[in-house]
Amino acid sequence: MANEAAQPPALNSLSIDEKTPESKAVGQIVTPFDVSGGVDESGKLLPVDYEKLTREFGATPINAALLERFEKVTGHRPHRFMRRSIVFSHRDLSKILDKHEKGEPFFLYTGRGPSSDSMHVGHTVPFEFTKWLQDVFDVPLVIMMTDDEKFMHSQKIEIEDAKRYTKANAKDIIAVGFDMKKTFIFSDFQFIGGAFYENMCRMAKRITINQVKGTFGFNDSNNIGEFHFCATQSAAAFSTSFPHIFGTETKKVASIPCLIPCAIDQDPYFRQCREHAEKMKFKKPSLIHSIFLPALQGPGSKMSASIDSSAIFMSDTPNKIKNKINKHAFSGGQDTAELQRELGGNTKNDIPFQYLTFFLEDDEELERIRADYEGGKMMTGEIKQKCIAELQTYVQGFQERRAQVTDEIMAEYMRPRPLEWKGNPNPVVVEKAKK
Amino acid sequence: MANEAAQPPALNSLSIDEKTPESKAVGQIVTPFDVSGGVDESGKLLPVDYEKLTREFGATPINAALLERFEKVTGHRPHRFMRRSIVFSHRDLSKILDKHEKGEPFFLYTGRGPSSDSMHVGHTVPFEFTKWLQDVFDVPLVIMMTDDEKFMHSQKIEIEDAKRYTKANAKDIIAVGFDMKKTFIFSDFQFIGGAFYENMCRMAKRITINQVKGTFGFNDSNNIGEFHFCATQSAAAFSTSFPHIFGTETKKVASIPCLIPCAIDQDPYFRQCREHAEKMKFKKPSLIHSIFLPALQGPGSKMSASIDSSAIFMSDTPNKIKNKINKHAFSGGQDTAELQRELGGNTKNDIPFQYLTFFLEDDEELERIRADYEGGKMMTGEIKQKCIAELQTYVQGFQERRAQVTDEIMAEYMRPRPLEWKGNPNPVVVEKAKK
Repeated sequence: MANEAAQPPALNSLSIDEKTPESKAVGQIVTPFDVSGGVDESGKLLPVDYEKLTREFGATPINAALLERFEKVTGHRPHRFMRRSIVFSHRDLSKILDKHEKGEPFFLYTGRGPSSDSMHVGHTVPFEFTKWLQDVFDVPLVIMMTDDEKFMHSQKIEIEDAKRYTKANAKDIIAVGFDMKKTFIFSDFQFIGGAFYENMCRMAKRITINQVKGTFGFNDSNNIGEFHFCATQSAAAFSTSFPHIFGTETKKVASIPCLIPCAIDQDPYFRQCREHAEKMKFKKPSLIHSIFLPALQGPGSKMSASIDSSAIFMSDTPNKIKNKINKHAFSGGQDTAELQRELGGNTKNDIPFQYLTFFLEDDEELERIRADYEGGKMMTGEIKQKCIAELQTYVQGFQERRAQVTDEIMAEYMRPRPLEWKGNPNPVVVEKAKK
Repeated sequence: MANEAAQPPALNSLSIDEKTPESKAVGQIVTPFDVSGGVDESGKLLPVDYEKLTREFGATPINAALLERFEKVTGHRPHRFMRRSIVFSHRDLSKILDKHEKGEPFFLYTGRGPSSDSMHVGHTVPFEFTKWLQDVFDVPLVIMMTDDEKFMHSQKIEIEDAKRYTKANAKDIIAVGFDMKKTFIFSDFQFIGGAFYENMCRMAKRITINQVKGTFGFNDSNNIGEFHFCATQSAAAFSTSFPHIFGTETKKVASIPCLIPCAIDQDPYFRQCREHAEKMKFKKPSLIHSIFLPALQGPGSKMSASIDSSAIFMSDTPNKIKNKINKHAFSGGQDTAELQRELGGNTKNDIPFQYLTFFLEDDEELERIRADYEGGKMMTGEIKQKCIAELQTYVQGFQERRAQVTDEIMAEYMRPRPLEWKGNPNPVVVEKAKK
């Protein structure tokens, strides 16, 4: 296992024993539309096997050598998500590090399918990480709000709903702390057209119905919008889709690649995009994948924005967070204090511990908690308290920033405009816009 | 045969005997991508059987009663294309006449897939007719240049080519004589976005892969852009796609229907559009269908923009027109003057006579030519001369107007802007724009 060396002890809780026999019940499925680790013979939900997924997708695990190079090239210690294999695999991350080393430009691209009025903590994971990458690399970032996709995939969501969700979610995203000067957030319904639409068509021309079926598991009963969206999501990986950021000297602009931080379920889009990019005279996007924050009910599924009790929402009050963790968070602890002291808790499926691996910055403290909990020194109630405190702090900080995000600020992030960053190869675009 | 009464004698040349046994070789195919009357057992190309097509498509033949009502409602004698069943079938044309009678608004929508630098006479047929309808009804007209579709359907056409063809073809279309105040010509590459893109998504959500396969004969090897274009072509049939023309009071605007004059091969798009329109709270578009001008080589196929000898191009010189007709136009005449005098010519497959039915305005003269030619009084050379003269006049008039169409004029037709017409229900849009 190539990335084992890079994993601090806490990480083992997320790794899956390769010798576990394949489930005879329902196998693992991970697509942008379906995320499940499968079901065992007894009907128990299984956690997603990320190593298996990495192999199947043909991605590369992030190993110690890559983390070391990352630190050397950027001068920053890898983010806790990287240290703990929450950000666990990649495609061509080295190429982006090469670019950064040479002082050559690249950009970040991530996105969100707006399907509810408030995001939950699971949604913020890729954004937290993306913000950190933006700070570390000092590069422009585009964030796509796929309101068109959400509309076309759901019988319940009308265009007006999707647009409302976009606005609410854009404010949530802004509250993560992105630098306005370097960040362009766009709604597909608002932004699609022009150079972006041309790249959608360039990509659509290369993707057959067959390929989409193979990649996403769609069939002839899916609608043409669902199929076509594959081209839409790919188009944002090309710098020429954003002339207001990169200018219009197509050849020069086309040489600017992007790095896509995303949850692993989005990889199929970009695998397809990478397959065709060079034939289109564009750069293949690089990717860096994160795992999912498990639902409160335990490992085995993704949180759902439409099930309140499955997740801590970014709009939850401190009291609600406390109650949700106490009431719904699946515990890996023993049934009684005596048994807990004797046998210790199981951190691998203990949701409070899992959440701490996502949100507690201090590696040593996390390792101490792990040892105490597994060793029976720490009770279920105690680890829940630690988790609650950590999440309350996290959510409160978010809510304070969120309260500052006015409609005007949101509109400015979403206005097609030049961005400003140190390595901007087209400062003239910025200068022009200032006049 | 419901529409027989409406047909002047010349028309019989285009009607097909219903008792003709079905070809055992290759059957008739008419889709937007393939137009063929089929091939008989000896390998001979067969003309398209428009009556059969009307039945199969479920359209309604235009009959004498409808022509009479048209004349009564509009105060205009039906166009020669209507009198001669060149414009031969429709869907819900009566509803448009109802609207006109009540002084309620509707709009015209037609389009062109730009695939070459110059249009041929076959291309101008629906535009000639559309211009006439615009004059008769005094209504706004939108003309869609499907450069995106041409790019996605052809391995040879790049985006830059499609955009160049759009500009050249838009100038050709303008030269047909459309009223600038009432006409908006748009390129998909330029215009798609905003309200139009929303309607594309609304339509795409309702069309499954299965439905497109059934309607267009596509398969899993077609690309997702080809499938998705069905939604694009439909979106322009909805008034809410053009807020710069109709305003943004969605409910009021959505009640404005459109009439689509088009060649019959485009009907499958709009059959699909009509199926879903009312569920989307839009009006079903009405249609009025024309047949194809046959290629110089004779009935049985559509002209091709990429085969110079198949068609008279709108850029051809008088001499080139003469040579093409003399050299390539399939003749229904006899091999010798003696035989022609004895047996007469066959107007049903005689290209010079067929072209005269399209372009010679005078019914009586056309009937005289038919009688003389069939009766052996008129020789092949003479009917060719008449055809040459008529086409030279037609093309010359076109070229004179085309020479006046500057880049600036074209840009103005293609600028999203309010249009002006008598029954405009939103004059405020026009007033606002003037300020």
